[in-house]
Amino acid sequence: MKHVRVVDLTQHLSGPYCTWTLASLGAEVIKVEAIHKGDSARETSPFVNGKSIYFESVNRCKKSLAVDLKTEAGKQILTELLKTADVLVENFRPGVRARLGFSDEALAAINPRLITASISGFGQTGSHAEYPAYDIIAQAMSGVISVNGEENTKGVRVGFSIGDIAAGMFATIGILHRLYERDAAGQAPGAPLDISMVGCQVALLENAYARHLNAGDRPAPMGSRHPSIAPFESYAAADGHMVIALGSNADWPRFCSAIGADALTDHPQFLSTELRLEHRDALSAVLERHFATGPVDHWLERMRLAKIACAPLMDVAGFAASAFAQESGAFVGLTTDATRRFSKHPLAEAVPTPPAPLLGEHSRQVLINLGYEAEQINVLEAAGVVQSAA
Amino acid sequence: MKHVRVVDLTQHLSGPYCTWTLASLGAEVIKVEAIHKGDSARETSPFVNGKSIYFESVNRCKKSLAVDLKTEAGKQILTELLKTADVLVENFRPGVRARLGFSDEALAAINPRLITASISGFGQTGSHAEYPAYDIIAQAMSGVISVNGEENTKGVRVGFSIGDIAAGMFATIGILHRLYERDAAGQAPGAPLDISMVGCQVALLENAYARHLNAGDRPAPMGSRHPSIAPFESYAAADGHMVIALGSNADWPRFCSAIGADALTDHPQFLSTELRLEHRDALSAVLERHFATGPVDHWLERMRLAKIACAPLMDVAGFAASAFAQESGAFVGLTTDATRRFSKHPLAEAVPTPPAPLLGEHSRQVLINLGYEAEQINVLEAAGVVQSAA
Repeated sequence: MKHVRVVDLTQHLSGPYCTWTLASLGAEVIKVEAIHKGDSARETSPFVNGKSIYFESVNRCKKSLAVDLKTEAGKQILTELLKTADVLVENFRPGVRARLGFSDEALAAINPRLITASISGFGQTGSHAEYPAYDIIAQAMSGVISVNGEENTKGVRVGFSIGDIAAGMFATIGILHRLYERDAAGQAPGAPLDISMVGCQVALLENAYARHLNAGDRPAPMGSRHPSIAPFESYAAADGHMVIALGSNADWPRFCSAIGADALTDHPQFLSTELRLEHRDALSAVLERHFATGPVDHWLERMRLAKIACAPLMDVAGFAASAFAQESGAFVGLTTDATRRFSKHPLAEAVPTPPAPLLGEHSRQVLINLGYEAEQINVLEAAGVVQSAA
Repeated sequence: MKHVRVVDLTQHLSGPYCTWTLASLGAEVIKVEAIHKGDSARETSPFVNGKSIYFESVNRCKKSLAVDLKTEAGKQILTELLKTADVLVENFRPGVRARLGFSDEALAAINPRLITASISGFGQTGSHAEYPAYDIIAQAMSGVISVNGEENTKGVRVGFSIGDIAAGMFATIGILHRLYERDAAGQAPGAPLDISMVGCQVALLENAYARHLNAGDRPAPMGSRHPSIAPFESYAAADGHMVIALGSNADWPRFCSAIGADALTDHPQFLSTELRLEHRDALSAVLERHFATGPVDHWLERMRLAKIACAPLMDVAGFAASAFAQESGAFVGLTTDATRRFSKHPLAEAVPTPPAPLLGEHSRQVLINLGYEAEQINVLEAAGVVQSAA
């Protein structure tokens, strides 16, 4: 997608995750940032060499144009840029884009081929449109928190920003779909995509809502256990924890044999899935006494030979240091510094990626490509309309 | 994408979530299922009118062809179908597709324009490729569980199948990207997309890994609280819970005023973000005494007027019954029965969707479109190669 130009008017995480994906697929992503300040994620700790790790992670492979969109000259620059663009992504509060002069109608007049995606907490219209939203708001409102956590609790926020990330991913899907329809099927780009963080969370909870709306279930946190299969949870071994997930009752004898506990196979409390569910605590106690006699790797090796689904309960440090992370290329370095490593995008090659841009790093380059003369750019810089990286 | 044909050889959730998305965007999705049995998700409880709700939710808008791929005639049918297809999605254990006769090379020979996506737990190659994996395995292995849950715990499985769903979403992005490159830029489809559930989880944890790999952080569960902002968590009011998320220290006086607690603004324990973080438990106690004097809606209304980010802590039943769910079109009915409601796909129109297919519901239609004669189909059915819905 090297010929696809994306104008990125997003901050924080939802929009940047979308444009990180588009950049990882090869699109040219030009991040348009406020002068002097830029994406507020640039101020989020921790920092390494003065750069926000939070910002660096999802802004790799992008360019930065720093421009003051409150000035007429700044608006003109964005207008010129949008004329050359295929995609605009923004996650302003609904209404802000129009107040800046870039309403749906204005965008259609500037570039009728432009595909726009607008990400917001609650959607562009309706009673909640103008309410501020962060990840935790979308998680709380949509019911995500209410199904996440240990049994008999009121739930806990998912420990990463799935409220933002899901919106970014659905926005990406919508953008790619429209690019396809436009360039392969000759369709008009249509009205801006209206991506609601809450709506995206509801789509992640499709099973919980399907059960509630059609079978009257009331989904609630249920820990790591499976409602209808056992063993299907986490167990302690001598040196750590592991997760074991039987596929069905047919796995039970093979599982018992694999861990050297054949006597369990015909234990009257554990003979069927139903019995194991009924005696789950007793089962856990028996298994953990057994697993205490050996380390995680010992048990995993035996279960894997028997095709029992299992995994170590890895923490971030453990996974990062694992042979599997290494062999699967889970992380990539930067082209500028191989020791700075980040999650590889699942759809990108496992090669070093260009670093996130400095604020205004590509201002001059972008303006020159738009036809601005060097002297004009100097004037814009002096007037505080445009900022270039030091 | 009505002219895009997707052959769907997936089961359970990761693949079906991908093809649900493609179907929601208008593609023709033909789900190829084993005769008599079909997608094993068809057997997952709860059931309504004999149909699995789990299955129904993510198989809407698809067709079903039931065929025995272990027979030569069945393989021939799949081959003919693939010749007419744009996309193949499968989530077999790595190696199974090749053993069925549809290796990468065989697929390229059958249809050089075919875009293939293979979803698996650990990727198609490497030491873990053949290990069985379910959602909880991907969550455990990738570190997701280790960052999700209450503070000072070993973490808990995310309470919905993000291990499967993320893989399905990244597969969708990869497929749309390749369709674009093929049909808009004339590129060859390339080798099958290798979508690893674990790899996709690592991309969701990009921030946790970025902090660990570059700043030495050791991410762990931290409940619903924010590490560097307060208030940013859940509080009890008189009739339920709500989440409040200050954007920055600048929100604090406005927040205090909004809830009618101006005296708190200058309270020496709560004067700055740092102080509020230090005295977070005291702050929670003070706020919950205050919030106990009114219901959730009272506090939300006041905070929203002051542009403070907040939301009710909704459970699934509460959100489903909410005015917001209604006005935002969060759920849609089936074309065959408006009372059967499911999550709306974020990129689909808010109109009723066709129901998930019966096993083999479209077998005859698909075969006729491939050029099979009615008499041939009768023979195939009698021989147990093909099954049509009763």
